[in-house]
Parts: sequence; C-alpha cells; structure tokens
Amino acid sequence: MDRILMAHGGGGRLMRELIDQITKIFSMGELNDSAILDFPRKRLALTTDSFVVSPLFFPGGNIGTLAINGTVNDIAVSGAVPLYLTVGFIIEEGFPVSELLLIVESMARAAEEAGVRVVTGDTKVVNRGKGDGLFINTAGVGVLEDGVNISPLLIREGDAVLVNGEIGAHGTCIMASRNGLTFNEPLVSDCRPLNGLTQLMIKSSAVHFMRDCTRGGIAATLKEAATAAGKSIRIKESSIPAAPQVRGACELLGLDPMYIANEGILAAAVDKADAEALITTMKRHPYGTNSAIIGEIVSGRPGLVTIETTIGGKRIMDMPLYEQLPRIC
Amino acid sequence: MDRILMAHGGGGRLMRELIDQITKIFSMGELNDSAILDFPRKRLALTTDSFVVSPLFFPGGNIGTLAINGTVNDIAVSGAVPLYLTVGFIIEEGFPVSELLLIVESMARAAEEAGVRVVTGDTKVVNRGKGDGLFINTAGVGVLEDGVNISPLLIREGDAVLVNGEIGAHGTCIMASRNGLTFNEPLVSDCRPLNGLTQLMIKSSAVHFMRDCTRGGIAATLKEAATAAGKSIRIKESSIPAAPQVRGACELLGLDPMYIANEGILAAAVDKADAEALITTMKRHPYGTNSAIIGEIVSGRPGLVTIETTIGGKRIMDMPLYEQLPRIC
Repeated sequence: MDRILMAHGGGGRLMRELIDQITKIFSMGELNDSAILDFPRKRLALTTDSFVVSPLFFPGGNIGTLAINGTVNDIAVSGAVPLYLTVGFIIEEGFPVSELLLIVESMARAAEEAGVRVVTGDTKVVNRGKGDGLFINTAGVGVLEDGVNISPLLIREGDAVLVNGEIGAHGTCIMASRNGLTFNEPLVSDCRPLNGLTQLMIKSSAVHFMRDCTRGGIAATLKEAATAAGKSIRIKESSIPAAPQVRGACELLGLDPMYIANEGILAAAVDKADAEALITTMKRHPYGTNSAIIGEIVSGRPGLVTIETTIGGKRIMDMPLYEQLPRIC
Repeated sequence: MDRILMAHGGGGRLMRELIDQITKIFSMGELNDSAILDFPRKRLALTTDSFVVSPLFFPGGNIGTLAINGTVNDIAVSGAVPLYLTVGFIIEEGFPVSELLLIVESMARAAEEAGVRVVTGDTKVVNRGKGDGLFINTAGVGVLEDGVNISPLLIREGDAVLVNGEIGAHGTCIMASRNGLTFNEPLVSDCRPLNGLTQLMIKSSAVHFMRDCTRGGIAATLKEAATAAGKSIRIKESSIPAAPQVRGACELLGLDPMYIANEGILAAAVDKADAEALITTMKRHPYGTNSAIIGEIVSGRPGLVTIETTIGGKRIMDMPLYEQLPRIC
C-alpha cells in the first residue's frame, strides 16, 4: 500500500500493520492504548498541542518535528523536564504512506534529540476532502523538580526580559514556503527543542517566568505575561535580535517581526542581578547563541507593553486581533 | 461571533476569547500551556485518542462525550484510575460557535461523571474544506495502584472471558444516524465511562486482562488478546448479549455484531473460580447490568479465536481487514 485508505483507520489488519510500522519507528514496546510509566517524583507537567501547519514540509523542519518540539517546549518553559509524549495522527485518505513514514522518522529523531520518549499513539483516517493531508496532536508529560516555580505571577518590577535568539524565523519560513519566496541567504525555521536550554537557565539563575513565543509571536507572549503579572513591560526595539531575511520580508510585506510566530524562541523574566551572567551562559548553548536582554518589567498600567522604537519613538504593543498568518503550527 | 473564523486559531485576541470561554466551561485555572499536577503515587498510565466521528451528534452522545469517555476508558482498562485529561480541538472555519460550546459543555459534564479533570487544551482552526467541522484529541493520565497488573500476558488457560453488556450499540447508532434509519424501540450509543466498573472489577476479582472493544469490535479485541497471550479463545455465540435492534440491523445489512464498534463495552479475562461471583457484582453496577461470561481461554494455536454458533457450528473469528464502518469514533 502506498496511499492511505479509509481502511487504515478502521481498526482492522491494515490499521494494525500501519500502526506496527509507526510504533517500530518510535521504538515503542508492547502495544497498548495506555502506556504505564514509573514516576518517582511529585509534580507533573501535562500539555497538549495539535499541529495543522501548511505546508507540511518547510525549511528546517516538518509537521512532525514541530509536533515533537512544540510540546517539548510547552513543558520546558513550565520549568519541567519533558519525559513522555503521546502522538495522534489524523490522516486524510489518499495521503502517501511514504510521506507519513518520513514524517514519523523525523519525529523519532526529534524525540531522541529532545531526550523524550513517544510512548503511546493513535491513528485516525478521514475521507478525502475532509482533512488536509495530515494533522498531528501530541501531548506531553514532564516532571517538575522540587523548588522550581515558573509563573507570570512571580514576575517582579525590575526583572530583565530576555529572549534566546533571533525572532520570527519560523513564521517567515512558512510564509515564504507558501508563497514560493526564496532568500539569497537561506532562512530555516527555529523549530528546535528548548528543554536543554531551559534547564540550564533554571540551574544558573533566578528565572521567574518563561514562555515559548509561538502563535502571536513575542508580542502576544509579553502581552499575556504583563496582563497575568499585573505589571508593565518596556521593550527596546534595537535590542531585539532578528535575522536580516526576517526583517527584509517583514518590511516588504508590512508585517512586524514581534508578531511573527516562533517555534524555538522563548521570552523570560529573570532577576536583574543575574541577567548579564545568564545571557553569557545561554550564549554558550547551541540554542541560545543570540540571546539578548530586550527590556524590563516596570511599574505602570497592568498589562501595558510599550516598545521604544529605533528612531526614539514609543508605541504600545497590543494583543493582535489574530495571527498575521494562519496555520503556522 | 457565531461562526468560527480562521482568526479563532491565530494566537490573537479572538483566539484568547474563545479559549477563555472553553476553559471556563472546563473550570480550568490559570491559563498555561502546561498544567502542573501533584502526583503522590508511582506508576502512571498515559494514553491518547483522536476523534473524527461523523456525524458529530448521535443518539446517546456526541464527539465530545466520546472524546472524554474514550480516553477515560483506555486508561480504565489498563487498571489505572484516570485523573487528568488534555483536550485539543481542530475546528473547521465556519463551524458554529454555539455548536462548539454545546459540545464543550457536554464534555465538561462527561468529565464530571467520570471523575476526571480537563486541565489543559489547545485550539487550532483550519480553512473551510480542509477539515470536517470538528476533530477532537484527548490525552489522559491515570494512576496505577501498587499491585494492579492488567496485561494480555497474564491471561491463563481456563480463564473465563466476559463482557459488561450488550455489544454493538455505538456502531449501529452511528450507522443508523448516517443513513437516516430509526428503530421502533430507540437505540442509543453505549458511550459511557467504564472507570467505576473497572475499579469494582479489580477490587472484587482476579482480573488478568481487560480491553475496551472500540474499532473492530469485540472480535478485534479478542483476536489481539489471543495473539498477545499466545493462547486460543473459544466463544459461545448464544451467550453474547446484544440488543434486538443491533441484531436486526446487522442481519439486514449483512454485518456481524462481533465486529461492530463499542464505546462502553469491555472484554476481560478473569480467573474462572471468580467469574460467576464477579458477574453478579458487575450486574449491580449501572454499566454492567448485562454482563455475561461469553467464553474461555483454551489450549490451542496461539491467536486462534473460534466461535460456536447458535446452530452448533464452529467458525474462526479473524481480524477484520478493516472496520465495517469508518469514522465511528
């Protein structure tokens, strides 16, 4: 069989064979609907995300690596160590089996890099025209060490606000892929696991808050954090790292990099005293080489995020009404 | 807004408002991508399922109640107590918001009945024509008490095989809904949470194996169990409970109730000595009133499942090549 049939979702032999192929790639053990996990510690982090990105493949990744890293990162920024993932496929009838297996293989590699195990899964098939090739859901479980507390409620006035690298690459890549744009200097998505970096950050500094800046970009993340914390945030535009391709594409299309989705970028609020040393530490990590302090927590109207522009002006960063680009993850 | 827009999935204000409505219905707390859970015990069960049932509403339930009960049941039959659920919505642009909220409300009620909490979620929107109204993924976490071990590997020769009620109702309901068939005596899906019943079973008897009989019906469940156990199973057709509407519809359409999907039916292998007493206990539970011993584990070819027909014949129950009816869950 080289194309997905409705029968691949039907509970019979064809489904079993497909699932066997998938579970082998993930090195899952005995086939059960529930995975049983030993858990010696006390607090768990639990998260889920569905992925509907279009196109399925883009420079730097595909829907599968996104599905692994997205869920790993949701757990990572909670301060927890991600350990186990579930995966659910919703496949459109007629989807090439080879493409599915290619995606599953890249998921297995992404899971290995992130140090997590895919322990249970599910496969459903929908009729042709009732899906869009492939949707993937992942849920993840992580363990939170005693004493680790990451929350917007812990954000304090004076905290430094930082990011771990150049913003806007993922959304720009998707936009370029969709519109057949290419860059002279190739641009790849920042799709990557952040759990190594977040653990490094927690161990070396007083991190109060972290969040990965996916849909809505860093603007939405900061706005939500400021609102939840009841504080204001002041950002300096000139300090925000972004690749020239991202700046160029945004300028061309009238978009703001601050609102572009990322898949391997986090924003954090940390104790000001630790901030410079933390940036030095982060820069040594492969996923933190372009880390930068971009602003600070200030007194002022709860939820207000202002940005000092490069030409010395000031503007309010509001919650976008919607993402500039749908289906980027 | 009374229809879902692409913007409802876009990470902006509209998405936030929709998510606020949903999280309120689930009584979720602080809005984070990861839920942090206290977990005092040692072994966890982890599972996931995506739901793509068509139509979304059917007698006795809807895609939402199915998404709660399906995942609750996957955990329940592992012997664990389900505690926490995640939920991921993939919504097609244009889907009525009122219908979505109706489904979410019924999910909240189903979760309450099952005694589980929906603790985190995700919402994605796909373009019109790229989905089918609504798909839902749930993942679940449960805790497995020390000493509880449920596995096909524990099945022993002589074990009694039992079910907790009349088989085939869910699949028959979906089939009838899809084809506009009605029954004189109304038939409703068996969509319901089994965790109360499974805990009762574990506490009162030596249960070796349990599995909920969803896609592929009880036939697929028994075939898989026999294969994993390396044993044969002998079933007596006359002992299998099924509603007259299910028998009638199957006869009319040339289907076999053994292959029809269920959503609140489990098959179990238990110590023969306990079986009769266990059936008496199960019959007192609202979801076990029609429990019955339907066969036994016998020596013979590993994976062989035979059924003694009502007219005294014998036939081999094979794994179906595929489900008779796609998208029943």
